[in-house]
Amino acid sequence: VFVSAGPVPAQGDPLASWNEGPVKKSLTDFVSRVTTVGGPEFVPLAERIAVFDNDGTLWAEQPIYFQLQFAFDRITALAPKHPEWKDTQPFKALIEEDKKAFLAGGEKALLEVMAVSHSGMTTEEFDATVKEWIATAKHPRFGRRYNEMVYQPMLELLAYLRANGFKPFIVSGGGVEFMRAWVEPVYGIPPEQVVGSVGKEKFELRDGRPVLVKLPAVDFVDDGQGKPVGIQKFIGRRPILAFGNSDGDHQMLQWTAAGSGARFMGLVHHTDAEREWAYDRASHIGKLDKALDEATAKEWSVVDMRRDWTRVFPFDK
Amino acid sequence: VFVSAGPVPAQGDPLASWNEGPVKKSLTDFVSRVTTVGGPEFVPLAERIAVFDNDGTLWAEQPIYFQLQFAFDRITALAPKHPEWKDTQPFKALIEEDKKAFLAGGEKALLEVMAVSHSGMTTEEFDATVKEWIATAKHPRFGRRYNEMVYQPMLELLAYLRANGFKPFIVSGGGVEFMRAWVEPVYGIPPEQVVGSVGKEKFELRDGRPVLVKLPAVDFVDDGQGKPVGIQKFIGRRPILAFGNSDGDHQMLQWTAAGSGARFMGLVHHTDAEREWAYDRASHIGKLDKALDEATAKEWSVVDMRRDWTRVFPFDK
Ligand SMILES: [Ca+2]
Ligand SMILES: [Ca+2]
Repeated sequence: VFVSAGPVPAQGDPLASWNEGPVKKSLTDFVSRVTTVGGPEFVPLAERIAVFDNDGTLWAEQPIYFQLQFAFDRITALAPKHPEWKDTQPFKALIEEDKKAFLAGGEKALLEVMAVSHSGMTTEEFDATVKEWIATAKHPRFGRRYNEMVYQPMLELLAYLRANGFKPFIVSGGGVEFMRAWVEPVYGIPPEQVVGSVGKEKFELRDGRPVLVKLPAVDFVDDGQGKPVGIQKFIGRRPILAFGNSDGDHQMLQWTAAGSGARFMGLVHHTDAEREWAYDRASHIGKLDKALDEATAKEWSVVDMRRDWTRVFPFDK
Repeated sequence: VFVSAGPVPAQGDPLASWNEGPVKKSLTDFVSRVTTVGGPEFVPLAERIAVFDNDGTLWAEQPIYFQLQFAFDRITALAPKHPEWKDTQPFKALIEEDKKAFLAGGEKALLEVMAVSHSGMTTEEFDATVKEWIATAKHPRFGRRYNEMVYQPMLELLAYLRANGFKPFIVSGGGVEFMRAWVEPVYGIPPEQVVGSVGKEKFELRDGRPVLVKLPAVDFVDDGQGKPVGIQKFIGRRPILAFGNSDGDHQMLQWTAAGSGARFMGLVHHTDAEREWAYDRASHIGKLDKALDEATAKEWSVVDMRRDWTRVFPFDK
């Protein structure tokens, strides 16, 4: 593994799926400034920390968060072992695919489904379950596996940053162990560079063999104001680049912006209903409102997906 | 930064402060086995995770944990701004250096001193405070700065592992922000590779500027059964090498040992009252009892400081 201390010479265009324009220019300008040895904005290798939201920033999040789809699919898979669910909400609604009845359960129903699908097993069992789901489940609109529903331009950006000595982290509201089960081969991001929401776990010796058991209790929610807290707790160094797509990333962008020296703050704005989806201020998923206003006011970079990306998914032509 | 994928040829002895013997041999044998490309125990670069306890494993911990000395020194430094402390325990006892009165306060007194010295300020203010203390405070027995009270053989081991593609993490019961303030120049371990006990923090905008405020509440204790939980939470991959010195590391060693493939489990046994200290089963600080029994039974490596180390501190001849 060779990590360069200066800008990497272009061998072809490392950001080939990005149209020329203000966002691409601000990205390459930023990388050039912080990697120019002796330049006024040079940043040492160890401080080139970049943070990326996941849902809606690195992979898609419609029509529902993919982790929630995983949870629903787990309930269906576990149902044969739980005959009592046929008469118990919210499981009954899920098994019968009765969307209206499920939604009537509100947040309580959601939390119950998350608890049942994400706890009561060891970390190794959970990891295997997610890996199996990722290898088989298909997205309802595109018919692709969920780990194909990632943004080609962002994959190129991750590789471009790594080639320039950056250390990219995921900082997501998603479950940290859900993500760690599949992100390494997809994004090239190892488990120790994934920050996310965390459930409580317990160490146990089972027949002399140590295991970690996932408990049905939330330990940390890595969203909104939790994102800078999570960055401080898990990384301990302020990023110089942050990319998100919703108001859940607002404080992470503010925290990144408030450091000294060169900074890059970016938002993915979903503007492409044809190739992906178009949503922002009124969306229940990935609501982008206040962060968009501050991005406009402070001249942060806002990706217009329709304008700025020549391709959205790796499987696009 | 060049990270080798195979064993590093000796240029002199990378473990010069280790005497030849079973521990040194088990270390170099282990590294050779996991880095031999094509060998039966080869471990890919990304999986070469090593974890080290800090107090008593990488730096000394007598006569009291150094972080506790920092807390005491903070109380003394803050006392002029708190005239009320002259009549309030446990502060009165500390200011008057009345050890007996302070110990009478038990754990409650300790927690109060830790809370006052470690919260009520921003993360940036705390970081600056620790850095100033590390640059000035001196150890009572050796008259050296605390960041000189580190073990030369362990510094060599960290460098040797890094040269062989390992990623070393600290996994310590100490406060994560206390450690991050000074470990990078001393051990070459960046903040994102430091796992420790964590206090709660809160994001705030102060006059439009984002800060993280340290709250007087414990979020996570990274000790004993908490160590494997912390490894899972912060690193997300099982280490292949773990080094500790007390029963607080017992579960971390068990967790490491329970993985598949080549493993190294090590303990520093403090056996050298002349050059350092000698303590184990009966000690209040760094008690080593059950972990020592399991190490003996399972043939984990136990460093006999007196026998195995030619030098203890970098300032030793
Ligand atoms: Ca998002
Ligand atoms: Ca220790």
